[in-house]
Amino acid sequence: MTTEPAQSTAAPARLPRTLTRNLSQFDGQTVRLQGFVHARRDLGGVQFVVLRDVSGITQCVGSGLSLPLPESSVEVVGKVKAHPKAPGGFEVQVETFTVITAAIEASPLEIPKMEWNVNPETMLDYRYVSVRGLRERAALKVQAELVFAFHSHLREQGFTEISTPKIVSAGAEGGANLFKLDYFGEQAYLAQSPQLYKQIMVGVFERVYEVAPVYRAEEHATSRHLNEYLSLDVEMGFIDSEEDVMNLENSVLTVMMERLKTTCAAEFALLGATIPEVPAHIPRIPLMEARALVTEKYGHAVGGKDLDPEAERLLCQHYAETEGSDFVFVTKYPRAARPFYAHAEINADGSLSPDITRGFDLLFRGIEITSGGQRIHDHAMLMDSIRAYKMNPEAMTGYSEVFKFGMPPHGGFAIGAERLTAKLLGIANVRYARAFPRDRNRLTP
Amino acid sequence: MTTEPAQSTAAPARLPRTLTRNLSQFDGQTVRLQGFVHARRDLGGVQFVVLRDVSGITQCVGSGLSLPLPESSVEVVGKVKAHPKAPGGFEVQVETFTVITAAIEASPLEIPKMEWNVNPETMLDYRYVSVRGLRERAALKVQAELVFAFHSHLREQGFTEISTPKIVSAGAEGGANLFKLDYFGEQAYLAQSPQLYKQIMVGVFERVYEVAPVYRAEEHATSRHLNEYLSLDVEMGFIDSEEDVMNLENSVLTVMMERLKTTCAAEFALLGATIPEVPAHIPRIPLMEARALVTEKYGHAVGGKDLDPEAERLLCQHYAETEGSDFVFVTKYPRAARPFYAHAEINADGSLSPDITRGFDLLFRGIEITSGGQRIHDHAMLMDSIRAYKMNPEAMTGYSEVFKFGMPPHGGFAIGAERLTAKLLGIANVRYARAFPRDRNRLTP
Repeated sequence: MTTEPAQSTAAPARLPRTLTRNLSQFDGQTVRLQGFVHARRDLGGVQFVVLRDVSGITQCVGSGLSLPLPESSVEVVGKVKAHPKAPGGFEVQVETFTVITAAIEASPLEIPKMEWNVNPETMLDYRYVSVRGLRERAALKVQAELVFAFHSHLREQGFTEISTPKIVSAGAEGGANLFKLDYFGEQAYLAQSPQLYKQIMVGVFERVYEVAPVYRAEEHATSRHLNEYLSLDVEMGFIDSEEDVMNLENSVLTVMMERLKTTCAAEFALLGATIPEVPAHIPRIPLMEARALVTEKYGHAVGGKDLDPEAERLLCQHYAETEGSDFVFVTKYPRAARPFYAHAEINADGSLSPDITRGFDLLFRGIEITSGGQRIHDHAMLMDSIRAYKMNPEAMTGYSEVFKFGMPPHGGFAIGAERLTAKLLGIANVRYARAFPRDRNRLTP
Repeated sequence: MTTEPAQSTAAPARLPRTLTRNLSQFDGQTVRLQGFVHARRDLGGVQFVVLRDVSGITQCVGSGLSLPLPESSVEVVGKVKAHPKAPGGFEVQVETFTVITAAIEASPLEIPKMEWNVNPETMLDYRYVSVRGLRERAALKVQAELVFAFHSHLREQGFTEISTPKIVSAGAEGGANLFKLDYFGEQAYLAQSPQLYKQIMVGVFERVYEVAPVYRAEEHATSRHLNEYLSLDVEMGFIDSEEDVMNLENSVLTVMMERLKTTCAAEFALLGATIPEVPAHIPRIPLMEARALVTEKYGHAVGGKDLDPEAERLLCQHYAETEGSDFVFVTKYPRAARPFYAHAEINADGSLSPDITRGFDLLFRGIEITSGGQRIHDHAMLMDSIRAYKMNPEAMTGYSEVFKFGMPPHGGFAIGAERLTAKLLGIANVRYARAFPRDRNRLTP
């Protein structure tokens, strides 16, 4: 829901700028457009320019024009005319054509013709210009709208945004996969997650969230991992169980998808993707039952203690077929698959389960996009867990001390923004859901 | 503008939770409160508990209660009664008092009695609990509202949020004060600013913003610097001059202050601070005129080429006295005081000034809170500037290459969120406007 950029002040009596997506409102009128030369064609007597602005593309047609190189920024003043074959159904008949800044070289990639799967490394090498592509920027636009829906809905639900340190003295998850940093002569690390800080802040604001980058120094390069990504983090206090956390995430996803319908229909159409419906109550299934279901229904023997990628895919297939849901919560994760701060499941008799936690994952279209759960809030239980996980209690005091001071039951979740974006849009590699991705071999641009 | 947290689902027929700030709506009725024991007093036959929740504090009075240590989380069910001497004008007569999680030690700091200026280092050492203090959290609440106003207004103005890398291969400002990082065996740095990336993204979305941490490895410890802070960054294309950028910042500040009036009146009252009025047109004065003004009016000889701290203070005093404005833009900064990407001033004859730029600062109540300006968009001019600043053109190609491809005239600004927050609230040290500050000697908690 954007308004037009404000009219510039320098040139008196200049027409206000029109965005290309609004051309249909100006049929027969003269408009002023600004943007980039997306494509051009010179047929001798007549020239065509496809102008790209933030809102889309439009065809401009003129004669006697001296066309600059593609990607030049230009201003066009001309009359809008209905034209069924033009993108958007209208074209602009050029009256004046002004080059604002001429491109001085041919672009290393032909922006209108780029294919994600043909030359991915080249596209990333030239990301500073390839990101101008319609599909490339569509992914980033969708992500921006997801993030804003996250902000808006959580504020309506009484959450306060926090900003926590990314330079830390120890890892939240136990020390593996940390980027090391020299901090005025001391060893420091880049934060893998705001986990411990967002828990502390439950003691301040009860309900908190953060939108910030996190860091994983994972050596392996896969299509679903980034070394730097945008994490949408939530933590809420005074809960009864992890069910409250899943209810919140259910509503967050609902608001996100509704926002995409009103702001990103064109982006989904461009990428041939569909905005999912979020059920009022996303199905929830305990992990052990999920494993059994996949084995019984599909004959897939699930390895390990968790779900393997094929099991995740089959479980999603099941819920898509039987309940029409692209989402499913897998609940009650085993202790062995969860971090030290995961709260144990509480048995019917009030005792704590030694091997089941109140942790959950959210699967979407075959892949995990969230981990969440209830956390330990009792100090003695936390210290036991730190020792059981063979972590150094000394290194954890800046975190663990707060649990001496009345932390209420609490839980939360984190959504990887790029992974959700990529999965929504059917983008095979998560790198294309980030403006300037960092991976094992990529530190530039 | 928050709604109540959703009612929990586990206990049937349980009263919905009431926030303390809404007590006046429930006079004579029974309510359920949750929060922390902010303070307690036992007069033998009668006990008083000051309960703190996210919205404020309220006095609860009962008898026969066994009071837990301060900071314990508790639930109170009781009847609301008008009581002129109680905080907020109402108290709650306790019917049931339930300890949710008992504090197991006395807090290292008495939360209700903390003084910023008495023991600042102790308060930061115990930040995981001192941040629960009413004034401490008020600063963070104000900051969260400033940030959300920034998001909301920029979206309404057609801006797209971006997320750019904080792990970079070179510094935006030339290489000083960078934290060094080992990135899979390669030398990398933490980004000082998203400057170069936000400029690139003008080629994609025309108008962009980012809310993210930035890093300055400055050795000196002052009350106005942080080594990690939250930067509110803006960049906009197709501008006529830096005047367009100042106009935008003017409107951003207006919306921020209006939002504070509706969401943070209690926080400003608590801290004895006043929300400033933002003029429809914030005064703008060229740097050379500002220097002359300060000298002529106040007899202060300004050192250096910029404004010294005393000159900043005096200039703000002048505009507060003569125009009632707490804000002033200082414009047309000299080349010597600006980075390589600053656009030169354009003289009346169209020529470029060799020593004046289109850079500006925004001063607020005696201190600079923003730098901004128009940037160089012409490739040849940029390469000349990089060489003139004695930077390595090779190291800049991931950035400079984009200027071969039609970058339109553009500019932007950045606001340091903590500095603005601290100055608004009269907090002398910027550390208290960050949840977990990082400084020369502080890497924890």
